[in-house]
Amino acid sequence: MESPTIVTDAAAGGDRILARDLGRHTGAAVLVRGWVHRHRDLGGVCFVLLRDRSGICQVVFDSAPTDGAGNPVTLESVVAIGGVVAANRKAPGGFEVQARRLEIISAAAPELPLAVNQDPSQLSLDAMLEHRMVSLRNPKTLSIFRLQAAIVHHFAEVLRGEGFTEIKSSKLIGSGTEGGTGLFAVDYFDRTVYLAQSPQLYKQAMVAAGLEQVFEIGMAYRAEKHDTPRHINEYVSLDVEMAFIDSEHDLMDLEQRLLAGMFAGLAEDCAEVLEAWQATLPTAAEVAAIPRITHDEARAAVAEATGRRVYDINPEGERVLCDRAAAEHGIGAVFVYGYPRRKRPFYTYPSDGNRTMSFDLLFRGQEITSGGRRINDYATLVDSMRRFGLDPDAMSDYLSVFRYGCPPHGGFAIGLERLTQTILGLASVKQASLFPRDRKRVRP
Amino acid sequence: MESPTIVTDAAAGGDRILARDLGRHTGAAVLVRGWVHRHRDLGGVCFVLLRDRSGICQVVFDSAPTDGAGNPVTLESVVAIGGVVAANRKAPGGFEVQARRLEIISAAAPELPLAVNQDPSQLSLDAMLEHRMVSLRNPKTLSIFRLQAAIVHHFAEVLRGEGFTEIKSSKLIGSGTEGGTGLFAVDYFDRTVYLAQSPQLYKQAMVAAGLEQVFEIGMAYRAEKHDTPRHINEYVSLDVEMAFIDSEHDLMDLEQRLLAGMFAGLAEDCAEVLEAWQATLPTAAEVAAIPRITHDEARAAVAEATGRRVYDINPEGERVLCDRAAAEHGIGAVFVYGYPRRKRPFYTYPSDGNRTMSFDLLFRGQEITSGGRRINDYATLVDSMRRFGLDPDAMSDYLSVFRYGCPPHGGFAIGLERLTQTILGLASVKQASLFPRDRKRVRP
Repeated sequence: MESPTIVTDAAAGGDRILARDLGRHTGAAVLVRGWVHRHRDLGGVCFVLLRDRSGICQVVFDSAPTDGAGNPVTLESVVAIGGVVAANRKAPGGFEVQARRLEIISAAAPELPLAVNQDPSQLSLDAMLEHRMVSLRNPKTLSIFRLQAAIVHHFAEVLRGEGFTEIKSSKLIGSGTEGGTGLFAVDYFDRTVYLAQSPQLYKQAMVAAGLEQVFEIGMAYRAEKHDTPRHINEYVSLDVEMAFIDSEHDLMDLEQRLLAGMFAGLAEDCAEVLEAWQATLPTAAEVAAIPRITHDEARAAVAEATGRRVYDINPEGERVLCDRAAAEHGIGAVFVYGYPRRKRPFYTYPSDGNRTMSFDLLFRGQEITSGGRRINDYATLVDSMRRFGLDPDAMSDYLSVFRYGCPPHGGFAIGLERLTQTILGLASVKQASLFPRDRKRVRP
Repeated sequence: MESPTIVTDAAAGGDRILARDLGRHTGAAVLVRGWVHRHRDLGGVCFVLLRDRSGICQVVFDSAPTDGAGNPVTLESVVAIGGVVAANRKAPGGFEVQARRLEIISAAAPELPLAVNQDPSQLSLDAMLEHRMVSLRNPKTLSIFRLQAAIVHHFAEVLRGEGFTEIKSSKLIGSGTEGGTGLFAVDYFDRTVYLAQSPQLYKQAMVAAGLEQVFEIGMAYRAEKHDTPRHINEYVSLDVEMAFIDSEHDLMDLEQRLLAGMFAGLAEDCAEVLEAWQATLPTAAEVAAIPRITHDEARAAVAEATGRRVYDINPEGERVLCDRAAAEHGIGAVFVYGYPRRKRPFYTYPSDGNRTMSFDLLFRGQEITSGGRRINDYATLVDSMRRFGLDPDAMSDYLSVFRYGCPPHGGFAIGLERLTQTILGLASVKQASLFPRDRKRVRP
């Protein structure tokens, strides 16, 4: 074989090609750059798997590559490799680079705190979070966040397509909208403020200000001492609020359209991620088939399945209801609506018999959405605050939204990490947060 | 004229049409819903301007509309009106609704704290923020946030088109990346943490983890006691970070592509907002013509223009430089690069003679971006920390990003509110924040 000239020069920063594009350059001299994912020295030939943002490609050396001092190139070092692309049925993707030249851009220290190139299910959650900067390098772990980025993208796209406007509201609030519990206090110059539990007040305000249909993608904070696989203290809330609804059923309709659109987008953009996690997404027809049952019906169904009296739907109950929906309706998801008033925040719109126009969406055994119609009448809202032991005078900013003409409206919120967890079947929601915050962990 | 049947019934919640779509329904019986923006009773005929999320339309009544008790319908009340669409050259948009039926959905209290239907330039900033829930109803004020939503949208779209992945990183950090000053403390269970000043650490970590090119749209916090038209204590930071760059010039190239793409998107989506504010956007050719000058050249230019010695580029200097660029290059924007090391954070990549590979973008007299290449070599970074009086041992999570192979990289951040302010020519950045937080204000 004739020895080709390297037309792109690593040191000069020439155009590189990505691992996934090798097949388009067969026979050409190319430059690839990335992380040394794995190497295998067979004596006389050494295979290096090079990882970049697009995937992994095989590079073949005559002998194990070394640095200038003759030391072997360590795993995770960042390198540039010039070589020629050749077809090889045994290589990942069917092509490989036959190396002619190597530059070590950034040498990795030899002892990794954990293996990057092995199945992350071997790792404990604690090890994964303790060495987060390294564990995130694992392609399967990192793919969780490619999916998450696509969720955020398609959430916004579908809503924009329905005429919604994105808002960004403050996360520093004078007091909690739902009472004062569960709030993190912030030392704000000479006073104390709190981290917002949700953008509830602000999304309602922006509906009433005339946007009518808004969404927000932002952090929400819960100072709760939970330490469970489904709780984190800081999470991304995908919030939706819309005007001119009649009841919570309009919101469930919207959420079904939203999820169907999001799932279609994810199926298209994230096929590899879904395959890596052996995850499947419901079809549009399945989403349209999600049943709606009242809170009373849900309690009765859980009682029947478990043989126990049921007051609240606990995590076990959520699993029971989703399993039943899967068996009867072909999708492991169910809307539960009509929650009793005492179980929902003060701003929830009351309906008959001490019920409310509220709902949860349970999906694959876990609550991923809570929502409902809100009280839009000033006097009713003041009355409800008093019933809940809140002081209307302390909430005059909030009340001014309703004093001057506010349409009927409602909304819901989806927890981004929980949705990610549920889609991929992750054991803990903490795996679906880049840098999760829990009671014990605020690093890295 | 024959009296038509109202085919859509307000009380029954039938399909409404939006104000902007009137022209497509001439002669038809329709339902419109929205806020009473203005009314004018001419005796025998009363014009009501009805505002909805799409715009404003005229509704004609035979006499001033009243509620059931005979009181006039108040401004800002939310109503549903059934009527027939007719062409009228004098009406906004060329069409009007001849009302047959009115339903008051939510009556507004009669005394508004400030006028919603007047030019907001009449209001003081203080009044505007004090009564934020009402001042945001003004269509021109609200339009600021329609533009802002479009900025966020196109920022993400352009970057996704270039292969960037969106990330969401924690805003609760154990310590400041740039020393401990200017941080808000949070009472986090039994310890103190801080609100992040920027996602700097995390975006670098995600580049090094293998995403290579990331962006984040999130809140950033600065506990600075500034009270100026260009500072707020909580803002939305549009953050970008990318691997495999050679110098800050690659980042300026990227920002020029990004701004050109964003401006094209805004020009298409926000023509009405720009017209309302009499704002224009630079063309792609103008953005491509943004000059690049060194910090030394910038100082000399300001000194020449002002006749004073110049050490730092202050706000006056920023205006001088933008004016000069406008005169010489046809766009009031300039990149200033090569800042001295003492003026940039410890992680900035050093270049010759105590300079750094850093830059700012000044646009229309104001800094809207700061960025640069970052140190990606572990030993250099440790050395730089020590020079800046920081303790490497206290930053071991951050350092682990660099210990195990990190490509050359850099990035920048654009302040969303400042960019909005600059595009629309707003007097204060606080006008470009829905619920701005400053030293004195944490409400509503």
